[in-house]
Amino acid sequence: MTPPALAIDAPTLEKILSEFLRAETATAGTTRAVIGLSGGIDSAVVCALAARALGPENVTAVMMPTSVSSPASRGDAELLVKQLGVSARVVDVTAMADAYLSGVPDADVVRRGNVYARCRMIVLYDVSAEVGGLVIGTSNKTELLLGYGTLFGDLASAINPIGDLYKTQVRALAEHLDVPEPIRVKPPSADLWEGQSDEDELGSTYEELDAALVRLVDAREQPARLIEDGVPEDFVRGIVQRVRRNQYKRRTPLIAKVSSRTIGPDFRLPRDAGMSRDRRIP
Amino acid sequence: MTPPALAIDAPTLEKILSEFLRAETATAGTTRAVIGLSGGIDSAVVCALAARALGPENVTAVMMPTSVSSPASRGDAELLVKQLGVSARVVDVTAMADAYLSGVPDADVVRRGNVYARCRMIVLYDVSAEVGGLVIGTSNKTELLLGYGTLFGDLASAINPIGDLYKTQVRALAEHLDVPEPIRVKPPSADLWEGQSDEDELGSTYEELDAALVRLVDAREQPARLIEDGVPEDFVRGIVQRVRRNQYKRRTPLIAKVSSRTIGPDFRLPRDAGMSRDRRIP
Repeated sequence: MTPPALAIDAPTLEKILSEFLRAETATAGTTRAVIGLSGGIDSAVVCALAARALGPENVTAVMMPTSVSSPASRGDAELLVKQLGVSARVVDVTAMADAYLSGVPDADVVRRGNVYARCRMIVLYDVSAEVGGLVIGTSNKTELLLGYGTLFGDLASAINPIGDLYKTQVRALAEHLDVPEPIRVKPPSADLWEGQSDEDELGSTYEELDAALVRLVDAREQPARLIEDGVPEDFVRGIVQRVRRNQYKRRTPLIAKVSSRTIGPDFRLPRDAGMSRDRRIP
Repeated sequence: MTPPALAIDAPTLEKILSEFLRAETATAGTTRAVIGLSGGIDSAVVCALAARALGPENVTAVMMPTSVSSPASRGDAELLVKQLGVSARVVDVTAMADAYLSGVPDADVVRRGNVYARCRMIVLYDVSAEVGGLVIGTSNKTELLLGYGTLFGDLASAINPIGDLYKTQVRALAEHLDVPEPIRVKPPSADLWEGQSDEDELGSTYEELDAALVRLVDAREQPARLIEDGVPEDFVRGIVQRVRRNQYKRRTPLIAKVSSRTIGPDFRLPRDAGMSRDRRIP
């Protein structure tokens, strides 16, 4: 059962997000988008949205397998490319990553995974320069809040149409957008090492995580309130800590303030207000 | 002649920036710093500050030459390492970058330079994971405002002690910190291709740029006012346009707003206010 706070109106969402993609690419002086396609549901939804909003001829999907990613992921990505008719290319990042990793044999899977994710960012931004398109982000709100992603890796993008949607909401949108079933039903994985599973690593299902996050973040309910309602205390405290600890992944580098006008969240130009379409005052 | 607005009180600055480095590393639960040392004045100043603030034993300087960077840069970086007594290592990023670049022979020097800068980011963040230290940023306010740097490359860091200092102010601080003379007097260069020069690329000297920027940004003077005072109109308009166009390099990826609490400059935690030591309200 989807809690009411997580229910979406998919056709309206599609309209809002399509308009976002059109308006923000236009602001940047382009109609083109570059998207890293992993075979997972998030990048599939973003690719489907971009194909509808900008036209498939304006979308370049980049598949970036490594020696440790699953061949099934590649197959799923290709299924979507065919369905949408977007242009696609494959850039294997194993050689690039290994040129560095071979010198650090003691690096664990997390360090190795971060190197892979950042090599993919390098490829996406270089393709973006080649085709004159914007890199479109594919991180959802659950991942962004929990810090479940690589800073300057998969978290890097110019604009992100799904960053304000929880994972379970992305799933509902995927159905509306006719994302192929194999992509929608498989267990979510960052695919950075064999057998990796999001829900194993996070220790809970996305349904449980989203139901708690939407109360804590969007409704601004106190953790104690959730615990009173029977949500396990360890789980609630764990989420709160994770959201706090990973705030550094959601902000720009912290600059030591020594002048009256410091670059950072406070240095805004009139354009920012318009661009973000939110209510903040320039 | 330094305009009064750009004059610095070097001993006080050193104190503020040292305290910033100590407090922010402590907040992140470490005493260690990782710094990419190019041989240029900005990273030299940051390394000298970190060595004084945290102790040289807590600073890891990483030199990351490529086949196109100048051997003199490497020599200058080593001079500083010796003077400060910080630990240092060399990681050549040519092989990593070329593993990708060999597949895109048409890439121009700018695209190639961005790949090098982003490979360096990968190395710095991996060293940061290895030693448990924070990556300290080395971009100055002139570069940040003009967008003269690689997004997710040299612009990537955890904390940056000199991001609120103009280039000419960094020079004055370098003298106070006894940064070796060869580093202080050579022409500034990003060293991403042979013969590259900041001032050639930017079309003006840092003295001219900083004198205009401090009026436009810090004093919030209108461009017309500078032009009335005899500053060339093309130069002023060029700066204003550059600052505006590069705002995307100074903010987090733009997320489509569809909920009441969207991740981005508006999603702040109580900690942010304390961390940034500025006057914004959480």
